[in-house]
Amino acid sequence: MTRPTTIVLAPDSFKECLTAKQVCDALDAGLRSVLPQAHIIHVPMADGGEGTVQALVDATGGRVLRAPVSGPMGGPITASFGLLGDGATAVIEMAEASGLGLVPAGRRDPRRASSRGTGELVLAALDEGVRNIVLGLGGSATNDGGAGLATALGVRFLDDAGRELPDGGAALARLAHIDVSGMDSRVAETTFQVACDVSNPLCGPDGASAVFGPQKGADHRCVAELDAALAHYARIISEDLGKDVASRPGAGAAGGLGAGMVAFFDATLRRGIDIVIEHSGLEGRLTHADLVITGEGRIDGQTRFGKTPKGVADVAGEYGVPVIAVAGSLGEGVETLQEAGFAAVLPILASVGPLEEALDKAPVNLERTARNLAVLIQLGADFRGRQDAVPAPGEDV
Amino acid sequence: MTRPTTIVLAPDSFKECLTAKQVCDALDAGLRSVLPQAHIIHVPMADGGEGTVQALVDATGGRVLRAPVSGPMGGPITASFGLLGDGATAVIEMAEASGLGLVPAGRRDPRRASSRGTGELVLAALDEGVRNIVLGLGGSATNDGGAGLATALGVRFLDDAGRELPDGGAALARLAHIDVSGMDSRVAETTFQVACDVSNPLCGPDGASAVFGPQKGADHRCVAELDAALAHYARIISEDLGKDVASRPGAGAAGGLGAGMVAFFDATLRRGIDIVIEHSGLEGRLTHADLVITGEGRIDGQTRFGKTPKGVADVAGEYGVPVIAVAGSLGEGVETLQEAGFAAVLPILASVGPLEEALDKAPVNLERTARNLAVLIQLGADFRGRQDAVPAPGEDV
Repeated sequence: MTRPTTIVLAPDSFKECLTAKQVCDALDAGLRSVLPQAHIIHVPMADGGEGTVQALVDATGGRVLRAPVSGPMGGPITASFGLLGDGATAVIEMAEASGLGLVPAGRRDPRRASSRGTGELVLAALDEGVRNIVLGLGGSATNDGGAGLATALGVRFLDDAGRELPDGGAALARLAHIDVSGMDSRVAETTFQVACDVSNPLCGPDGASAVFGPQKGADHRCVAELDAALAHYARIISEDLGKDVASRPGAGAAGGLGAGMVAFFDATLRRGIDIVIEHSGLEGRLTHADLVITGEGRIDGQTRFGKTPKGVADVAGEYGVPVIAVAGSLGEGVETLQEAGFAAVLPILASVGPLEEALDKAPVNLERTARNLAVLIQLGADFRGRQDAVPAPGEDV
Repeated sequence: MTRPTTIVLAPDSFKECLTAKQVCDALDAGLRSVLPQAHIIHVPMADGGEGTVQALVDATGGRVLRAPVSGPMGGPITASFGLLGDGATAVIEMAEASGLGLVPAGRRDPRRASSRGTGELVLAALDEGVRNIVLGLGGSATNDGGAGLATALGVRFLDDAGRELPDGGAALARLAHIDVSGMDSRVAETTFQVACDVSNPLCGPDGASAVFGPQKGADHRCVAELDAALAHYARIISEDLGKDVASRPGAGAAGGLGAGMVAFFDATLRRGIDIVIEHSGLEGRLTHADLVITGEGRIDGQTRFGKTPKGVADVAGEYGVPVIAVAGSLGEGVETLQEAGFAAVLPILASVGPLEEALDKAPVNLERTARNLAVLIQLGADFRGRQDAVPAPGEDV
């Protein structure tokens, strides 16, 4: 008996267009129109950045919760986070509470912007009883070394008169002492994983302030001020907590939030895609898979450096399962992906036209691409069946 | 033993971009990179219009010849025609000698334009010893009912004083007698096939003058004059030759050239793709084929009405060979082609961009599409091999 083909769908979202789950749905429709008996498994993916909450909630049958928190400039906002299907893990995207996209261009101020709202999301997650927290960085408005986040969990940042510092990275220049005695007791029972795809240190020319400050509104002088404040912050952390965050790769992620997560929460910093793969349950689905289909809005030569499709291809490769990627658009160097574990990368575009049209038609184009893929696989299986049965012309039977 | 996969490549040209042979070459490169053992057969195709000479010359290992002829407005030009690999068949595209593209917009005059040059190409072909002539219509500048073509072969069109008429459709209004006694003697030994995809009659509201005259420069009054002249021409043909061309579907093709070909050369009018299929030798290549790949620059719902890919799909269907089409661009209604015999239609585009870029990248995009196609067929064959060999989980061995 021929067993049904098992196909795992593990795409990222298509930016500005479709969530990873919607990509799965479109692929599923196309595949099923040709292979109605196929076993098709949806594992929507993400890379730890935008879309990670939605993908992991969709992949695990979890749900999205909302909580009132402080915005990056202090005003009240409502932000969402994900509670995964295991009921024990929360996924938080920092950009939801402390993101640059929440602050109009004219009001951006990395000296005062705070990650406090992200800490309030952590509190809300702890209130749900979770004991694993995945925090996705990226897109932050802040440069406060995660001090705001820690404050929300009960850490106190004091000046030399014992007064609490105001929010924001600039005030850290006056930090004299860190008091962790008031830390929420649940933190000690909770593991923190930070999805962090940059290796920037906290300070210096490759640090948080110099590299990411300008896009948050910092001019040359402000960068120098914030960089000095974070260097001072690292010294006080070292003195009061005995932790070296100054030299830690990734500490400079998200305005130094990486440093704070390591200093106050013993967080592990990991590649986003690796965290998503772990929590999505992808590996367990690969045991009997014949094929994995991944994908992303744009795929090019850079995809082999840690983006979602590459992470999926790596783990599928460990299980010996071939991987096909689908892409809204192919870019330079895509031909190098063949050596990076992709059997093929299929573009989905159907016709010449503007970007808006391509985005509009993405669901239809994905469905057709999956249908065509299934037709060709079916054809190949038919060839094999026929060729095994029939001798070649001129061949002795 | 598993015999090698046999794939027949039978695409049309990609307009403004690649000849059918170049499309074959790009597809071949992509297929061969994955299936080095495959037996890949090139049968470049066309639909009887532009590109037919090149495709059939390429498909049969023939050659392109050139001859000095009269242009549509009388001046000397050099035009090419094809001598097929059998050495007995010539292929002529009317547009080469009598095409609208040869006359600048300001000099177009369907009253005077003549198909004489196309007749001179027929003469040149007869001089090569051929006894089968395939004539592709389409793109003509003329409205002379093929009188110019016939004149070149020795037919005389006389007024009531016995004087030869000047070239052009308007003069036919004064036609009194047709003298075929001087017809080139080789014509009687030669078969003429006209690739004709329109069913317009010679005259009337659906006739040559009314439908195609305006694009050749005829205004309302000129259309009426030319229509009356062709009606008179049909009456004289009936009186002198006993042939009814007035009611013949297709007689109105190419300014009435269809009528002249029937009247003077006993030509058969056939769908272009059918003539090309016959002369390309496609059918003989399908006997042991596993797959046919056809294609065209643009494929849409209209493709199922007689374009090259549909013709290829029809004949492949008779041999039970699956057909995949590749296309530079997909248009409205392409999903209906599934019921028209296409297993799949694969767009080759890789990224959003202007048309010029898409045309530039067509060879690379075709090669990648063929490579991906081969990868998927190979995957399907592998699945089949594995699934036949391995019991499903939980299944008794």
